[in-house]
Amino acid sequence: MLYFSCDYAEGCHPKVLEALTRTNMVSTPGYGEDRYCESAKEKIRESINCPEADIYFLVGGTQTNQTVIDSMLSNYDGVVAAATGHVAVHEAGAIEYSGHKVITVPGHAGKIDPRELRQMLVDHYADESSEHMVNPGMVYISYPTEYGTLYSKEELEAIGAICNEYNIPLFIDGARLAYGLAAADDLTLEDIAKLADVFYIGGTKVGALFGEAVVFTKNNTPKHMITQIKQHGALLAKGRLLGVQFDALFTDNLYMEMGKHAVSCANTIRKELVNKGYQIYMENPTNQIFVVMENDKLDTLSKEVLYGFWEKYDDTHTVIRIATSWATTEASVEALKKIL
Amino acid sequence: MLYFSCDYAEGCHPKVLEALTRTNMVSTPGYGEDRYCESAKEKIRESINCPEADIYFLVGGTQTNQTVIDSMLSNYDGVVAAATGHVAVHEAGAIEYSGHKVITVPGHAGKIDPRELRQMLVDHYADESSEHMVNPGMVYISYPTEYGTLYSKEELEAIGAICNEYNIPLFIDGARLAYGLAAADDLTLEDIAKLADVFYIGGTKVGALFGEAVVFTKNNTPKHMITQIKQHGALLAKGRLLGVQFDALFTDNLYMEMGKHAVSCANTIRKELVNKGYQIYMENPTNQIFVVMENDKLDTLSKEVLYGFWEKYDDTHTVIRIATSWATTEASVEALKKIL
Amino acid sequence: MLYFSCDYAEGCHPKVLEALTRTNMVSTPGYGEDRYCESAKEKIRESINCPEADIYFLVGGTQTNQTVIDSMLSNYDGVVAAATGHVAVHEAGAIEYSGHKVITVPGHAGKIDPRELRQMLVDHYADESSEHMVNPGMVYISYPTEYGTLYSKEELEAIGAICNEYNIPLFIDGARLAYGLAAADDLTLEDIAKLADVFYIGGTKVGALFGEAVVFTKNNTPKHMITQIKQHGALLAKGRLLGVQFDALFTDNLYMEMGKHAVSCANTIRKELVNKGYQIYMENPTNQIFVVMENDKLDTLSKEVLYGFWEKYDDTHTVIRIATSWATTEASVEALKKIL
Amino acid sequence: MLYFSCDYAEGCHPKVLEALTRTNMVSTPGYGEDRYCESAKEKIRESINCPEADIYFLVGGTQTNQTVIDSMLSNYDGVVAAATGHVAVHEAGAIEYSGHKVITVPGHAGKIDPRELRQMLVDHYADESSEHMVNPGMVYISYPTEYGTLYSKEELEAIGAICNEYNIPLFIDGARLAYGLAAADDLTLEDIAKLADVFYIGGTKVGALFGEAVVFTKNNTPKHMITQIKQHGALLAKGRLLGVQFDALFTDNLYMEMGKHAVSCANTIRKELVNKGYQIYMENPTNQIFVVMENDKLDTLSKEVLYGFWEKYDDTHTVIRIATSWATTEASVEALKKIL
Repeated sequence: MLYFSCDYAEGCHPKVLEALTRTNMVSTPGYGEDRYCESAKEKIRESINCPEADIYFLVGGTQTNQTVIDSMLSNYDGVVAAATGHVAVHEAGAIEYSGHKVITVPGHAGKIDPRELRQMLVDHYADESSEHMVNPGMVYISYPTEYGTLYSKEELEAIGAICNEYNIPLFIDGARLAYGLAAADDLTLEDIAKLADVFYIGGTKVGALFGEAVVFTKNNTPKHMITQIKQHGALLAKGRLLGVQFDALFTDNLYMEMGKHAVSCANTIRKELVNKGYQIYMENPTNQIFVVMENDKLDTLSKEVLYGFWEKYDDTHTVIRIATSWATTEASVEALKKIL
Repeated sequence: MLYFSCDYAEGCHPKVLEALTRTNMVSTPGYGEDRYCESAKEKIRESINCPEADIYFLVGGTQTNQTVIDSMLSNYDGVVAAATGHVAVHEAGAIEYSGHKVITVPGHAGKIDPRELRQMLVDHYADESSEHMVNPGMVYISYPTEYGTLYSKEELEAIGAICNEYNIPLFIDGARLAYGLAAADDLTLEDIAKLADVFYIGGTKVGALFGEAVVFTKNNTPKHMITQIKQHGALLAKGRLLGVQFDALFTDNLYMEMGKHAVSCANTIRKELVNKGYQIYMENPTNQIFVVMENDKLDTLSKEVLYGFWEKYDDTHTVIRIATSWATTEASVEALKKIL
Repeated sequence: MLYFSCDYAEGCHPKVLEALTRTNMVSTPGYGEDRYCESAKEKIRESINCPEADIYFLVGGTQTNQTVIDSMLSNYDGVVAAATGHVAVHEAGAIEYSGHKVITVPGHAGKIDPRELRQMLVDHYADESSEHMVNPGMVYISYPTEYGTLYSKEELEAIGAICNEYNIPLFIDGARLAYGLAAADDLTLEDIAKLADVFYIGGTKVGALFGEAVVFTKNNTPKHMITQIKQHGALLAKGRLLGVQFDALFTDNLYMEMGKHAVSCANTIRKELVNKGYQIYMENPTNQIFVVMENDKLDTLSKEVLYGFWEKYDDTHTVIRIATSWATTEASVEALKKIL
Repeated sequence: MLYFSCDYAEGCHPKVLEALTRTNMVSTPGYGEDRYCESAKEKIRESINCPEADIYFLVGGTQTNQTVIDSMLSNYDGVVAAATGHVAVHEAGAIEYSGHKVITVPGHAGKIDPRELRQMLVDHYADESSEHMVNPGMVYISYPTEYGTLYSKEELEAIGAICNEYNIPLFIDGARLAYGLAAADDLTLEDIAKLADVFYIGGTKVGALFGEAVVFTKNNTPKHMITQIKQHGALLAKGRLLGVQFDALFTDNLYMEMGKHAVSCANTIRKELVNKGYQIYMENPTNQIFVVMENDKLDTLSKEVLYGFWEKYDDTHTVIRIATSWATTEASVEALKKIL
């Protein structure tokens, strides 16, 4: 069976596993106060050219979004997100559970439109009832988005400028950051760190067993951050596991290399799909392909390939998601090509 | 340096690591819907002789306590715990963050006294103002306690009977369950499952990289449990990692064997301490030793041994904690004995 | 100055004030356990022909929405509301603060479309990821809506049937209930009680100093409701004040009479507006009139009339709200007519 | 029947009722943006000699405690209170519902001991695990306490100095403030305003229908306070009702006069009790008397007097509470004296 249904189907990259194995019986202090975490943080700081970056390692994406958003917002604040954003739809109300509204703006292929964002803020503060409404206290975007699309540098700068003007932080969810940067023309990890007030580097979907590295870039870490992480049930006892993994991910450019590999595999598949006349449903340059399939074809495909069901297209067609990852092999890509 | 300061200082037991390595590149569905989780659950069900047990794997202890307590309580409920209980003291307010009060009763070497528990409940319901007070909606105990002490079977039965009488669930925090059961005269894992309405089998401190197995034993799983776990940021994307680990822990009795090993090491050290005339501060039969040390002696000890500072005893003495674990070697025990 | 800007600008109806004055120095138990509350409840039960109705008096609308919604939902639930609903927009995040998402469906002049509601529920449960999403656990509608519009009996029955089918309660926010019922062709208070699983009878905007009567109609009161009300800071010490007021409101049909009066005043104004060629912005039959005004005209109007700014219509026109209430006098209506 | 069971059994002082009646049909803006609120605030500012005081009117005590504490604390903070404090015991978990732990220190006749408070803080910050614990972020005391006792000025200064040293606000719950100040030797309302960072002046128990005036004294109002009040369901639509009442309470010294009256009545009763040889259970100088009664005597008393049951003393005696208030008449005091 060929596995293309998601990018978190395997364990971790062999180099990460090797690092975990090598350090397995070393005794360290708990809760991230170990040398591996220190080393990983230092490597990340170097890779973003931001010596003052303050970094925390958490376990998963929803947990990270909840903890970052709740720790940065005041009681009266909500977080602005695309209506299709992960925090708005697929986190089981984790943000609301922490007391905050997700204020939605329209999603355009997963992206916020800077002009619509600005208009929403202008309207909010012009509203006579604004004190009876949730205050927009942060902007959340994902890069790449849940639809695999990317903001251009210009778009990110426009959103960042609006956030600056309104003095609210910009939070970039980088659950698939490597897959975005590998496909970006004009944007580097360093740029992300400059543009965001806080962002996270996703490990779970890019080569780690688990783990997300939250980076506060503007000397803006919330107070008592460890306490807040603990309060959210997000402080890993053996924090060193996160350090060891991110240390490996940021050694010899592994994190970025994995991104390139997955995107390259995706592009090969995309090309084949286009050549064979399939209709791409949602254009995007990253590791997720959304394609329209005849249902008959799907019946055949299902016997050999695991893909993601996305949505019904019409009575005879379905949109499916094909996801590549660091773990995708060239052999499986070739095999898929033959089946398509 | 000899490491005796805690029981979560290393990675995982070699057999667990072997299982993770062996399965690393296998593709599975996410969120715990994989064969490894199924297998691990089946082994746990067998080991507790409870075919109807419903099992969920979470990542860490505070997260587990928060999720279990919040999912089982109604809005108006609080959880009753010893004043020294982990949920009352060392979880950064994770329970209150989820909206629930920790109602404390005195801790006696970490343990709740069944008579005091009953009296608290009697007094609560007799109070004319009880509707203006938080309702006691669950009893939380840890086995072993934070002080390494154990409830006898009789004590647990007494607490369980009170819970039954008041129709509130008994939740047993088994973060160090193996270390408790290994030291217990009269209690088995099966007994724990019979006595508790919900309990968890701690992996983080007993041979896993991380992971706690929550067991609902009475067909009493809260509705939409997966949604609730997700909402608490506690649903691991690669849930299979928990399945693989618990599968290994419950193969060939590994979990219990590790418990025995740690307790045996602790007993060897205890004997040496007593022989050398040290004062045991808090008697307990499990893997944690609380001992009074002269400060001068500690200065020497510190050069070769990492131990846990517990509290000041008097101007010239200190209480320290020596913790053994599955990872403690006989060599290190011998080395420690020489230094003491 | 003529006051038409809102329906909560004065104190209370003279008969309510008389009742408060008459009972002022009577000593009663606190927290609503007094004879006035009992009497008011009994009168409400009679007026809805529902002897088993369980009734609680709260102070204000947002508080009532928060308390009812939070007490009826489970952790994993959100409340479905029109995107324009009060709970979605103008309660400062009170629902999210209590941990629950407001799941929005489109508002059509403030109303939910039963077909769109059904489709949303169908889609939710058909979604493979539904366990990662907030569960729709209640439907909230307002009658009349925030735009003064009314659901027909047929529409309410359709929504009620969907709620029954999905086994989720229907909650009707009746902040302006009297103004709705006075304008309804086909609907009575008894009908509201039959259709809703829980609803509230608004006092604040209809003749009381403050107060909303929450009615659970289906033997479905959440457990420990007094504790939950207290927990939300919503239990009035001198609960008798609510009983005295609602007793007066439900004596000699006062509540309904006030509704008729306000609607009659509104209709007189509406007629005048139409006669004079003004454009009604949002047609509705209740006590709120949304009308388009030339800005020049507004400049004049502002000198003699207080009205509500609603929104900019175009560069030379503005939408304003004219609200009548139980306190509107015929003299002020006549005066307004002359100015228009 | 003589009513001595609590101090919130009647409506409001005749002068307050007169003010409500006089202003009843005046139209004002909602939500406290009216001239009566402004006037009341100004009078309070004058009475505390603190022109920069920022004042908000809320409806009830638990609501006020919840809103003030939640708005002033950060996520990671808890509030320190006596174990017997209202927020710790009798608010149905309203503080925990808002996400914060009530950190208890021993209550001594309802009072915090400054030395124990300091020790708790010293111990907290000295604890190696303090980042895993709830941060003490505010000190809450009640004046008078739930037991009618009073802090001396010296004690309050000592607590205030500790709060300053640790940079945490001191919050004084003045639900019965007038009854405390009337009995104090050495403390004025102005002193309270100087000592507290935030306090509230209780109206519900001292002559108002309802209402508590929250006073921020140090230019320390939390941001978006109106939004936060709304979010807690605590923003009264007809806010003018609070303004009208507090304006009356702070006209011609009415608030303080009511305090003196109630204390004077209590002292008369106290003297009679002592003369007749009754045992005072908890000495205090304010409007609540805690006295030990023979059960036989109580049987007789119950026929003519409503008192508060406090607790069982022994098999033949009971502790009861006799509360006087602004509404207590000299006639009822004389009548009670005869019955005792």
